[in-house]
Parts: sequence; structure tokens; C-alpha cells
Amino acid sequence: MSARLSKPEDYEALLRDYDTWLFDCDGVLWRGDNLIEGVTDVLEMLRRRNKKIVFVTNNATKSRRSYKAKFDQLGVEAHVDEVYGSAYAAAVYVSSVINLPKTKKAYVIGMAGLEEELRNEGIQVLGGTDPEDNTLESFDLGTFKRDPDVAAVICGLDTQINYTKLSKAFQYLLHDPACHFIATNEDSTYPSAHGLLPGAGSVGAPLRYALNKNPVCTGKPSSTMLDCIKAKIQFDPKRTLMIGDRLNTDIQFGQNGGLATLLVLTGVTLESDITGPNASSVVPDFVTQTLGDLRVLDK
Amino acid sequence: MSARLSKPEDYEALLRDYDTWLFDCDGVLWRGDNLIEGVTDVLEMLRRRNKKIVFVTNNATKSRRSYKAKFDQLGVEAHVDEVYGSAYAAAVYVSSVINLPKTKKAYVIGMAGLEEELRNEGIQVLGGTDPEDNTLESFDLGTFKRDPDVAAVICGLDTQINYTKLSKAFQYLLHDPACHFIATNEDSTYPSAHGLLPGAGSVGAPLRYALNKNPVCTGKPSSTMLDCIKAKIQFDPKRTLMIGDRLNTDIQFGQNGGLATLLVLTGVTLESDITGPNASSVVPDFVTQTLGDLRVLDK
Repeated sequence: MSARLSKPEDYEALLRDYDTWLFDCDGVLWRGDNLIEGVTDVLEMLRRRNKKIVFVTNNATKSRRSYKAKFDQLGVEAHVDEVYGSAYAAAVYVSSVINLPKTKKAYVIGMAGLEEELRNEGIQVLGGTDPEDNTLESFDLGTFKRDPDVAAVICGLDTQINYTKLSKAFQYLLHDPACHFIATNEDSTYPSAHGLLPGAGSVGAPLRYALNKNPVCTGKPSSTMLDCIKAKIQFDPKRTLMIGDRLNTDIQFGQNGGLATLLVLTGVTLESDITGPNASSVVPDFVTQTLGDLRVLDK
Repeated sequence: MSARLSKPEDYEALLRDYDTWLFDCDGVLWRGDNLIEGVTDVLEMLRRRNKKIVFVTNNATKSRRSYKAKFDQLGVEAHVDEVYGSAYAAAVYVSSVINLPKTKKAYVIGMAGLEEELRNEGIQVLGGTDPEDNTLESFDLGTFKRDPDVAAVICGLDTQINYTKLSKAFQYLLHDPACHFIATNEDSTYPSAHGLLPGAGSVGAPLRYALNKNPVCTGKPSSTMLDCIKAKIQFDPKRTLMIGDRLNTDIQFGQNGGLATLLVLTGVTLESDITGPNASSVVPDFVTQTLGDLRVLDK
């Protein structure tokens, strides 16, 4: 059962027990373009107390650099090397885990941020934002020549999804069983400023269905994301706290990595998801209403 | 275990036992634009012997009228009222099973043939081939107004699939649990003239994944397709034979309807799919190499 935090001494105990604080962003720090009350105060307090801060997002449409701009716009202090996104995790997975040779290429269903992260890791990219593949013209399989150097298909959220991109990605995976099939994340939806829209998992669903095969997923809750963080910073899992609003991504991610977990109720998880007969089997260590609750420590 | 047909008396027994012959088309009569050898002779022989002939296809991109043109082009005799497609089955389902009021509308992911069948049944259509929704411009949920009259989302193969169509369809289904969710068919792929491409099931996969909900399917193997045929022609299931090349659509469809089933090996099913340790659990009554085998009866 989760410990319900409310008193100053509850939050003081978190500061005593955890040195590294991992934050999901959407639903924890902000909702859409609206900052959650008290968040800047709490992050400043944690920095003053020398906590290591890391931001972990499944948003694969932005590179870390462009995601940092979102922090700037909302007036929240953040540094590029504190930000870990699923696009970056996918790029690190391809370059460091698969060790894709530099002569090989990746076919991308995804947007500029994913391309940027892949190219930063030295990976050659086809598809993605290439105007030739961002078309509703009919796709002619008869004249399509597969590039023999494509050795991976990487799929993230792509609001320019179309039949040409799906068909090309499908051909690479269908005709080469060794071709790597990677998804940045499998979120079925994402919360836009005006409501839910189909997420990266939905954009990649046609490939999974057509191939009857699941991709390797690099975002939360996959351990690939944690491996990326571990490769860059040192931390003791026992003294690390993952804070998030989604049980099946954020909290599961923390638990998979042996971290302590704190659920906030400012995002998609409702009180009824964690109490009563239909409660999820994913149980966080701690629950608090909002990250802003930690402001009591400043008083 | 299936009876393997090869001798003239095997085929003569089929003629003796079955009055109504249901044919899948792609993989049985033709492959892409190539007619399978002997097919016209066999169909002519069946017509001479007064067999009732019905063509049953999951292709939802064409109306019955435009599908009939394919027969004409290949020189195979067929009549519009002998052709049953999954687009037609979807239209009949919406108009006669759901009884969608005439003031209500359907939002369509699909092509001209599906729209034509729906309009023939008096159903008002949004989406589909509307140029406004066939775009790669970004979709703005903030300015999108749901049409309160939309009471069904119908999804078929759509090679103009894009994020705007997916997002609109998703909004209708997400915000109105009573909105009907219908798929013409769930074929994961379809055999184009130059190879496999993602099929209707794959095009609809993002909605299934985003909603975590399965549509009602009107194509084979669903009984909705057989109900459409039953509504138009009289036949005795015990004296009806379904001929197809796919175990999980054609043969399953026949078995669901209490029909006898004949598998041909000129399409997607291989010899190894029906024999040996990995054989499918769907077992046809009869197997023959090709529909052309029945030509022996003309000699």
C-alpha cells in the first residue's frame, strides 16, 4: 500500500532519503502549457538542497534541445543535460546497444526532434521529415526500391503519418527479418492543450498489426531509458525517487529500475485508479496530491 | 481432416452436393491483375449446370459496381447482384442492423467505394474523400467542432490515411461511448500487384489502440457479411460451398455460417499451413490446388 504524504515531516523524510529526483514532465510539472502551481518553488528548493534533478519524458517529437525551450518558455530552470527524452533514448539504443554500423541507415516514422537526436548520434536517417515521404500521393510499390542499407525502422509520434511512410517501413521490416523494429514509446494517447489525441503507440499500431510483431520500446517504462540515464550520470537506485502521474509508464518505470516512486494526482491518474476494488496492480511507494505540496518545506 | 480432391469423381461430387457456390476473388479467381488459369472455363461450366454463383470480397475500396468493372476487365462474367463486398456489408449493417436514423451521419476513414455504398443506403457521410480531411496540415483540436449528428465511425482501407482523419474519428468515439465503431474488415495486409501492403485492419489499428476497443467487423469472417447475402438471395447452407484461399477469413467465414468449405492453394495459404505440426486449427472440408482443377469436368 502506498504511503499518503501530507505533513511537513513526510516531505522532509523524502529529502533525507533521496538524493536523485527523476521527474516526468507533462502532468507533473505542467499540463499542456500551464505550469502547475508551486512547481518552480519546489524545484528551486531541491536545487538549493543539492538534489540531482533529472527530467524524463516520453515526448519523442522534440529533441532534448527543443524540449529545454519548453522549460524556458514556462520559466522553469532546466539544463539540456538534465533532460532525457524517448527520442534520445531511441538514438542511444540504436548507436550504443544495437551498435548500428555507420554505413547503415534508419527509416523513420517521426518528427524533427527524433531525426535530430538520431543524427546527433551519427545515424543516417531516411523518411521522417523528407518531403518525398510526407505526401498523400498514392504509393507505388512497383517502382519503390528498398535501400539495402536500411537496418532499422524507428517509430515515434508523427502527425504527418501517411500510407507512403507506413508502406515503406512495412517493406523494410517484412523483407528483412533482421531489420530492427524500434518504438520511442507506446503511449496510446497524449494530452494536447485541448484534449487527448492519438499518441506514438497509436501511430505505430499499423506496423505492429501488419507484421504481427511488437517493437522494442525505448521510452518509459522500458529499462532502455534508465540505461541512457545511467550511462551519463551516477546515482544510487536506493536513494533515487521517480515522480510521475502515470502508473503504467512513470511508476512502472521507477519500479523496473529499483527506484522509489511518488505518484502525483495532477495528471492522468485519478484517486479512483489507486483506491477501491478496481485499483491498479502498480502501487507507488508514495502518493501526494501535487508536486506543489512540497512547498511546505520552504516555510 | 480435409478431403484432398484430385479425381474427376471428387469434383463431380461437389457439383452433386452443392447448389450455391460462394467465391472469394483475390487468390482464388485472380492474383492482382492476373487471372488464374482455367477460372473462366470453370465459372462457365458452373453456370451451365445452373449453380448459383456469389462473389464475396473483403475489398472495401470498391463499391460492387466498381468491383464488377474488375471482372469485366479480366473477361470474367459477373453481375453486380452477385458481388458482395465488405463496404456493402458495412452499409447494410449501418442502415438495417443499427438502423441509423436518416438525420444521423457516419464519419468515414475509407475511400470512394465505401462512401458510394454508404450513400446508396441513404447514409450521410463525413470524412472519407472530403478534401478538407485529406490533408497533411496539422490538426488543431482547439478549433475542431464535433458534428453532433455523427453516430458511427466506419473504417476501411484508406491509402489517404492521415492524422486529421484519425484524430477526428478518435474524438467522435472518445467523447460518445454510444458512437458505433465499425470496420469493413480486419485483414492485416492485402496483396497488391507488386506485393503485400498494409490492409484495412492496419489502417484502423491506431483507433483500436488509442481507444483500447475493438470495432464491429462486417467483412469475412463476420456473420454480418453472410446476413447481407441471406437478405438478398435464398440458399440452403447445407448445399452451399465457400471457396477461398485464406483460412482465417474465407474458410472461417464458411464454417461460421454452417457452409461446406473448399480451400485453394493459389493465394496466401501454403501447403505447410494445413499439414504438419504447425497446421492451423481452421480445417477446410476440401482442399484442391487451384479452382482450375474443376476443368476436368468439361472434358
